[in-house]
Amino acid sequence: MKIVVLNECFLNEDHMKRLKSLGEVIVFDNTTTEEQAIKRLKEVDVAIWDGFICPPTAKVLETADKLKLLVLPHTGYFMVDLETANKKDIKVANAPGFSKQAVAELVIGLMFAVNRKIPLMDRDMRENPFESDPGNVEHQNRYWGFDIKGKTMGIIGLGRIGSKVAELALGLGMSVIANNRSPKTMDGVEMVSKEEVLKRSDVVSINVTSGADTKNLISQKELDLMKPTAILINVDQGPMVDTEALYNALKDKKIGGAGLDQVAGLTKDHPILKLDNLVFTGHAGSSTNESFRVNLPELVVSAVEGFIAGSPKNIVN
Amino acid sequence: MKIVVLNECFLNEDHMKRLKSLGEVIVFDNTTTEEQAIKRLKEVDVAIWDGFICPPTAKVLETADKLKLLVLPHTGYFMVDLETANKKDIKVANAPGFSKQAVAELVIGLMFAVNRKIPLMDRDMRENPFESDPGNVEHQNRYWGFDIKGKTMGIIGLGRIGSKVAELALGLGMSVIANNRSPKTMDGVEMVSKEEVLKRSDVVSINVTSGADTKNLISQKELDLMKPTAILINVDQGPMVDTEALYNALKDKKIGGAGLDQVAGLTKDHPILKLDNLVFTGHAGSSTNESFRVNLPELVVSAVEGFIAGSPKNIVN
Repeated sequence: MKIVVLNECFLNEDHMKRLKSLGEVIVFDNTTTEEQAIKRLKEVDVAIWDGFICPPTAKVLETADKLKLLVLPHTGYFMVDLETANKKDIKVANAPGFSKQAVAELVIGLMFAVNRKIPLMDRDMRENPFESDPGNVEHQNRYWGFDIKGKTMGIIGLGRIGSKVAELALGLGMSVIANNRSPKTMDGVEMVSKEEVLKRSDVVSINVTSGADTKNLISQKELDLMKPTAILINVDQGPMVDTEALYNALKDKKIGGAGLDQVAGLTKDHPILKLDNLVFTGHAGSSTNESFRVNLPELVVSAVEGFIAGSPKNIVN
Repeated sequence: MKIVVLNECFLNEDHMKRLKSLGEVIVFDNTTTEEQAIKRLKEVDVAIWDGFICPPTAKVLETADKLKLLVLPHTGYFMVDLETANKKDIKVANAPGFSKQAVAELVIGLMFAVNRKIPLMDRDMRENPFESDPGNVEHQNRYWGFDIKGKTMGIIGLGRIGSKVAELALGLGMSVIANNRSPKTMDGVEMVSKEEVLKRSDVVSINVTSGADTKNLISQKELDLMKPTAILINVDQGPMVDTEALYNALKDKKIGGAGLDQVAGLTKDHPILKLDNLVFTGHAGSSTNESFRVNLPELVVSAVEGFIAGSPKNIVN
């Protein structure tokens, strides 16, 4: 049994020991060209490969005659030519949910950051340290938020991440309402229409899976339904939120604020970057030690172990 | 019965109606001089007065011959000459805990902001929008945090605010340990020594009451006990944290980060303002609508109602 690791992906000594107990393990620093990939997959049974820079194309998979399992150390698998994988009987496993806790916690972190104006105040304090005066009307308008406890968190998409967001919001004493494409129930969560989520919520979190049908899921029509004090949070990737409509809603204070981990079509000179009532992070949903150094390698190694033991896990094809 | 309001303090129509049902109510925009105060307190039974700009001095209280109750629309009462109040049999009521939820939520908000580098990333994104690459080691060092769930929140001072912080931390799936000067218990919270809080916690929140004996409660010795990844949060006022010791600990990365709503001795050119591993807010613990527009006037009006009905509330002398 030959196992090849084509990208260093947070496997520590213990993980390597577990892989080595299953067969010969060959590690490469990074596989960036098709030629490298073709050569390195020859005579190999299992490959661990992120495929972001050099994807597992038809050409690469065609020649991988012994390959039985390709493990992706992430959740997406759009980069794999699944048709060829199926033809060659190569199973593809991914690492679903490795960062669901981290992503849900970023939703909550952004909610507090937007509501209590933390990054805005941090910027102001660094430029001109002061003690804000709660009696000062100017400071009230600039810095005041609302108590989170007792408010309504609305979740669009109650999947792996959405249900973690629900759990955290309930833990903070919020009411939780949600909409999910397919019927779903969760203790303590009231399922309602998407329109009702938008109308009733003090905080709206978008947690749908990116796809053609979710493009501009939140556009002017949806923003118009929201409360003037409500906060919109989007930490998922893809163009779910119409950036221009959001820019206008924030500029005209039609909604209270927004927290975004992704901004579709953002350029350096976009005026949204000048607004005070939103907070940006940059693709940081997964960015915790636990996501990458604990959960991810565990899912990768156990996918290999499971496959070899005859109990394949997280196979996507 | 004459009731005088010497500072506008978030009393809305309903609150005013309740006060008016108790007697004649006279409202002033702001009382800023001793002469105004002396004049305005004449012939008055109850005064609602913040006393920050013009304090209730001996001279003012001496001449307030009919005054029976002074209500402070905040928690501190250091500005009142209590000796004279006692001599004149004037009762002083304050508004304890009007913002405990808001303050505790700021602790949690700062925890997420520091841990997930939200203000830092927001600054970076505004200067140079990008998609951070979790595979990039430079971005890992700059932006990664840890999962909050399963980590230990340590609270020094399990009072009104500290126990709210405990409640929220438990709701997020954290373990909670705490130290309190006097013996105390709380469901789900393990009481330990101050040293153990510092040694074992991933997040340390200071929630003691400001006073001479809490000056430099956290100095180099205490910071040395903390984990190199731990986050220190201080939203209470007063010089509990030795700013120089904290500056050195953060600069040398002896601790992971800090979130501060108060910085003792902060000047515009202090080098701590340049550090990336801390987040500043500016006296914003109470800054929610619920604190000032709901809880505070309710406590003020009910203090007057209770006193007149013979059940005085929140009397400090």
